[in-house]
Amino acid sequence: MGMIGGGPGAFIGAIHRMAANLDGAIELVCGAFSSDPEKSKQTGASLYLPPERVYGSYKEMIRREAELPANERMDMVSIVTPNHLHFEPAKLALENGFHVVLDKPMTFDLAEAKELQSIVEKSGKYFCLTHTYTGYPLLKEARQQVLSGKFGSIRKIYVEYPQGWLGTLLENSGNKQADWRTDPAKSGVAGAIGDIGTHAFNMAEYVSGLQVTQLCADVNIIVEGRKLDDDGSVLLKFNNGASGILFVSQVAPGEDNNIRLRVYGEKGGLDWSHKEANTLYIKWPDKPTEIWRAGENYLGSFAKHNTRTPGGHPEGYIEAFANHYRNFAFCVMAQLSGEKPKEEWLDFPGIEDGVRGMAFIESVIKSGKTTEKWTDFTI
Amino acid sequence: MGMIGGGPGAFIGAIHRMAANLDGAIELVCGAFSSDPEKSKQTGASLYLPPERVYGSYKEMIRREAELPANERMDMVSIVTPNHLHFEPAKLALENGFHVVLDKPMTFDLAEAKELQSIVEKSGKYFCLTHTYTGYPLLKEARQQVLSGKFGSIRKIYVEYPQGWLGTLLENSGNKQADWRTDPAKSGVAGAIGDIGTHAFNMAEYVSGLQVTQLCADVNIIVEGRKLDDDGSVLLKFNNGASGILFVSQVAPGEDNNIRLRVYGEKGGLDWSHKEANTLYIKWPDKPTEIWRAGENYLGSFAKHNTRTPGGHPEGYIEAFANHYRNFAFCVMAQLSGEKPKEEWLDFPGIEDGVRGMAFIESVIKSGKTTEKWTDFTI
Amino acid sequence: MGMIGGGPGAFIGAIHRMAANLDGAIELVCGAFSSDPEKSKQTGASLYLPPERVYGSYKEMIRREAELPANERMDMVSIVTPNHLHFEPAKLALENGFHVVLDKPMTFDLAEAKELQSIVEKSGKYFCLTHTYTGYPLLKEARQQVLSGKFGSIRKIYVEYPQGWLGTLLENSGNKQADWRTDPAKSGVAGAIGDIGTHAFNMAEYVSGLQVTQLCADVNIIVEGRKLDDDGSVLLKFNNGASGILFVSQVAPGEDNNIRLRVYGEKGGLDWSHKEANTLYIKWPDKPTEIWRAGENYLGSFAKHNTRTPGGHPEGYIEAFANHYRNFAFCVMAQLSGEKPKEEWLDFPGIEDGVRGMAFIESVIKSGKTTEKWTDFTI
Amino acid sequence: MGMIGGGPGAFIGAIHRMAANLDGAIELVCGAFSSDPEKSKQTGASLYLPPERVYGSYKEMIRREAELPANERMDMVSIVTPNHLHFEPAKLALENGFHVVLDKPMTFDLAEAKELQSIVEKSGKYFCLTHTYTGYPLLKEARQQVLSGKFGSIRKIYVEYPQGWLGTLLENSGNKQADWRTDPAKSGVAGAIGDIGTHAFNMAEYVSGLQVTQLCADVNIIVEGRKLDDDGSVLLKFNNGASGILFVSQVAPGEDNNIRLRVYGEKGGLDWSHKEANTLYIKWPDKPTEIWRAGENYLGSFAKHNTRTPGGHPEGYIEAFANHYRNFAFCVMAQLSGEKPKEEWLDFPGIEDGVRGMAFIESVIKSGKTTEKWTDFTI
Repeated sequence: MGMIGGGPGAFIGAIHRMAANLDGAIELVCGAFSSDPEKSKQTGASLYLPPERVYGSYKEMIRREAELPANERMDMVSIVTPNHLHFEPAKLALENGFHVVLDKPMTFDLAEAKELQSIVEKSGKYFCLTHTYTGYPLLKEARQQVLSGKFGSIRKIYVEYPQGWLGTLLENSGNKQADWRTDPAKSGVAGAIGDIGTHAFNMAEYVSGLQVTQLCADVNIIVEGRKLDDDGSVLLKFNNGASGILFVSQVAPGEDNNIRLRVYGEKGGLDWSHKEANTLYIKWPDKPTEIWRAGENYLGSFAKHNTRTPGGHPEGYIEAFANHYRNFAFCVMAQLSGEKPKEEWLDFPGIEDGVRGMAFIESVIKSGKTTEKWTDFTI
Repeated sequence: MGMIGGGPGAFIGAIHRMAANLDGAIELVCGAFSSDPEKSKQTGASLYLPPERVYGSYKEMIRREAELPANERMDMVSIVTPNHLHFEPAKLALENGFHVVLDKPMTFDLAEAKELQSIVEKSGKYFCLTHTYTGYPLLKEARQQVLSGKFGSIRKIYVEYPQGWLGTLLENSGNKQADWRTDPAKSGVAGAIGDIGTHAFNMAEYVSGLQVTQLCADVNIIVEGRKLDDDGSVLLKFNNGASGILFVSQVAPGEDNNIRLRVYGEKGGLDWSHKEANTLYIKWPDKPTEIWRAGENYLGSFAKHNTRTPGGHPEGYIEAFANHYRNFAFCVMAQLSGEKPKEEWLDFPGIEDGVRGMAFIESVIKSGKTTEKWTDFTI
Repeated sequence: MGMIGGGPGAFIGAIHRMAANLDGAIELVCGAFSSDPEKSKQTGASLYLPPERVYGSYKEMIRREAELPANERMDMVSIVTPNHLHFEPAKLALENGFHVVLDKPMTFDLAEAKELQSIVEKSGKYFCLTHTYTGYPLLKEARQQVLSGKFGSIRKIYVEYPQGWLGTLLENSGNKQADWRTDPAKSGVAGAIGDIGTHAFNMAEYVSGLQVTQLCADVNIIVEGRKLDDDGSVLLKFNNGASGILFVSQVAPGEDNNIRLRVYGEKGGLDWSHKEANTLYIKWPDKPTEIWRAGENYLGSFAKHNTRTPGGHPEGYIEAFANHYRNFAFCVMAQLSGEKPKEEWLDFPGIEDGVRGMAFIESVIKSGKTTEKWTDFTI
Repeated sequence: MGMIGGGPGAFIGAIHRMAANLDGAIELVCGAFSSDPEKSKQTGASLYLPPERVYGSYKEMIRREAELPANERMDMVSIVTPNHLHFEPAKLALENGFHVVLDKPMTFDLAEAKELQSIVEKSGKYFCLTHTYTGYPLLKEARQQVLSGKFGSIRKIYVEYPQGWLGTLLENSGNKQADWRTDPAKSGVAGAIGDIGTHAFNMAEYVSGLQVTQLCADVNIIVEGRKLDDDGSVLLKFNNGASGILFVSQVAPGEDNNIRLRVYGEKGGLDWSHKEANTLYIKWPDKPTEIWRAGENYLGSFAKHNTRTPGGHPEGYIEAFANHYRNFAFCVMAQLSGEKPKEEWLDFPGIEDGVRGMAFIESVIKSGKTTEKWTDFTI
């Protein structure tokens, strides 16, 4: 694997590397870690990479790796740059025959997303968009239970993602994470809606198996002086007639990262939250709520495949991330060896999720500005 | 105290009686428990009331009690009938010089509410609307902390009230509770929005000290064949510019009655839920969340006044209810003895809460039907 | 009902009165609230009692009430004095034909307890010992589930009761509650072991249906200068071969009153804690833990009988207490009317629990002083 | 790194490999994964190791690796075999100049432990015993807070470790994990006391900074036909006079792996449990309990050093394990480069923990068999 981005001061690059390392199936062999060649070199050295495979730019990396013999060059690229630097490297990598892992939200805007979709489709390569949370085994279990029909038709979906770290104008204090996320030139048209709203949206659609068709948004910039939204609430309508709410905030003091999903059907419902990531509550109208736990024998094949430890040994954020990497790597290896990938391996977020995520961002921002109640979700 | 309503099959009448009994300050001395005199008699007998003070109708009760000598007649009336039977008995009681405790929502519609307001104001009598939840000591503490300014300006309010008991067409199965709550002739224009939405609305305004000015509602009838809403989500705007969400459902399987409020300000926030009624979470951007517990010495005077037991001895729904009754009784007794009531005693929901609650119902239902995004909250 | 004790500064007297009031089935008609006649009078007046039925001593009260006509005098006595003042008034009341409710631990020592047992048995009167916690509906449910055999043979019992309020030498600061509880002349041979250890012991035996046969105790006085134990841990052996641990402390900072019981059998187990009094966790080796909730339809008859509100409306400490009072009152009324009491009514702690509790205290204190590992539980 | 053990069917070997992989600082370069050379080969191949560095026995591996040039051979050995196969390979590795990571409990018996201690001391090599739990950042924080004196003198320690997986005679059904853990020839004198009791013991001493001096144990074989204890409760006395309880069980249905520690001092206390590994409750007698969360800025240097993600991104069991590996690797690298290791790096469990753990096992088993109440903790 080669990496684009993830140099000094980056948060998510290190997470990607740990996730890729965890299972011993993926090896980082090269990188273009920064647009500053000196910083790229430093990062490469700190990662014990041979100097000749630490590149000064992603273009150089893709070109030079493509020239290496097939058994030496990287198989896949992981792109962990800010949003505005997603499309070009992903395009170039795919066009040069590399599988791509890309951080979310997928692109700078929906137009780029649709273009990338056609590039992926033409390339025949695997593409993974790292919506981390759907890598958790109990969200996979949740989806399988919903799809099994045990809850009947889904009626109501609540998804929330409160954070507190942007309660002040942190972007003015030199915080690199805050800086690009609040800058329209790097983040695109949305702040919180893009950064965390897309996670919540993706989780709701993934678990329910439904698709949003209409929405009504209240999008806010709460901290004075900020350029992009740091808070938003969205009423949702789904394609089966169900309704829901999605709400995110980055100005809720004391909330650390507790994304939570509740899905209620005709016959039962479920509740999952990041704070108790290894627990899934299954609810019934007329009998006790059940506490399903990761690692237990009674779980389905998707949950089991995405767990490394027995019940009671908590797996966390890095493991959820690693599940996407591992499944992606299994698919890539299957392609290399001409095998058919298992259904469980193919269960990672892809280009379709990315396009819908970008459409979500644009639809929400549009809704936030109109006086019409309902805005169609359009791609 | 005399009671109107609360005969066989009623749920809330028994709660009112236990709440009134609890502290030994209020004695049930008479009642008109049912519009069926026979049933009224039965209930009165089961409550050990002397037969001569069990009446066949509320009109008879008010007239006859008013004729008794001052030291024998009831001082106050508790009205626990369905919504459409609130206004007339309340009016009659007030006009005959009795203090009134009334179950929520206050009246059948906003017009009645406003008329009742002017009757209360003219009467010089105390009026309590039993929004139970604000009787919990830790919600009183929450309000005091918000009003103290420790959280800075309030930015975001989330309030939710999920239930699951109306997931099927229960009203067709002879359930008395379901029956009148889903019947427009008894409940008014709203179902869930009136029954539980007004509780959530009242809690949000009470704790935050703010007032809703605009809202945008998604009001749903989810169970086929039902005549009134059983689900609704409402985006809110408050008079200080804060935004929020209120969501209620009666079709969320496995949810028993877990009303929850989260309020986030510039400098901190709070989280309270009915399931952990004796706990209040206080949140900070840069230090650990604090777990405040009912009955502890560090609490303020409003919380302390409304608690009967030391920390770790849970008080529940009946005690919260009893707090309203006790405070109301203290005020009535102070009036009788010509004393000035304490500030803590006056802290029970009153006519203003009732009018705003009815305005909330009508505004939400109006918003649910329009294609405009924002509907003004109008009284 | 008449009350002995519960004057100014008492905690538990007020609880008893609220518990007796709650359901409207018991009326406080007289009292001897303090050994100081003036204080007794004050308390009586504050409770709206007629002055002629507020007595200067328990002896006077029992004598004078016994002289009243049967339909005027009290039916039962509630005794809420410190331990050393339990036996004499209980004896006198029983011998004069009054049913007795008595606060725990039952007597000053085991010898008194055994004597009281024979007095109760001779009297033909009902006797209730207010071990509050077994009044909680979900502990009744727990017992019924254990007795049903669904968990198989019980193997392991853990019961704990941590408090923090005696972490300093509070008895030297004029705190009335701390004062008598730490005074051997009033409390007897034990402090924490008697005050809260007996609750834990009673809960373990009640829910499991088992009896302790041997124990091994580590009894500690942690705060320097204290005269009685404020902490203790006890290894237990039960009559079916199961083992367990009981641990209590009054010097655990921040612990408010969270008594907790865990029972594990061959096929399943359960977990209940006071902090979540309306929840019972049922555990299985090979399927999800279940969350049983008070007020739900799926519960058994004992839980249902001891609940006043539907699921999600928390009932607390006073309601648990009131369950004992109500069941006791139902039995007394049944006796008066010559009816057979229902099985659910008879389910309150009685003289046998009291004798075993005193034996527990003496056995633990004995074990705490010996170098032998196991001490027989002897009555 | 080379690995001894961890072939097909092993659980903990895979955990060690993931933990070592996670941070990219340690590379698995060779292994002797099974005493069956064929199985060793298979495992090596599945881990992408070059065949020439997959050995048929640990002796061969250590000899051949020692012959390689310094810059090619492994630096350290990870030994993940059952207890009876710990001492010999550890001894050989140390004597051949390799740093050693060893799974717990350290050896087959205390005599071996003491011999290993002198070998480690002579070797000048680093030695890590993988008591996973003390790798959690919030247990490191807990220790630092206790050592800071903020809680005053420690008075009471409760540590518990309930599991349910051995509730039946699983060892007779071909379960490899159950098999060796219940076999005295492989596990030593203890079952649960060794397997999980040593974890609990280590955690109590690590966080409190205290040492057990006396104990009183109730050791049980609950499942009929089992050869070693599957349950035990131990009263503890510490070297500062504090007392405590340690209890473990492997027959508690539905308990998955929830080790929990509570420490109470004069001025405050703490509570940590594996189920909420990223949360530490700090308790006070007179102010609200605080919820400290991993990844937050307010934590001390030990917690921060042992965390990879910001607050709200849960890290789990593998990360805790990886903390020991990473700290160990940092120390090894510092030794190689002649630098002084940081205090935070040296904070992993070592030979002293291992010796005390073995002494704990032997003292508990001895206590379980005697009629004396207190047994001295002897090394």
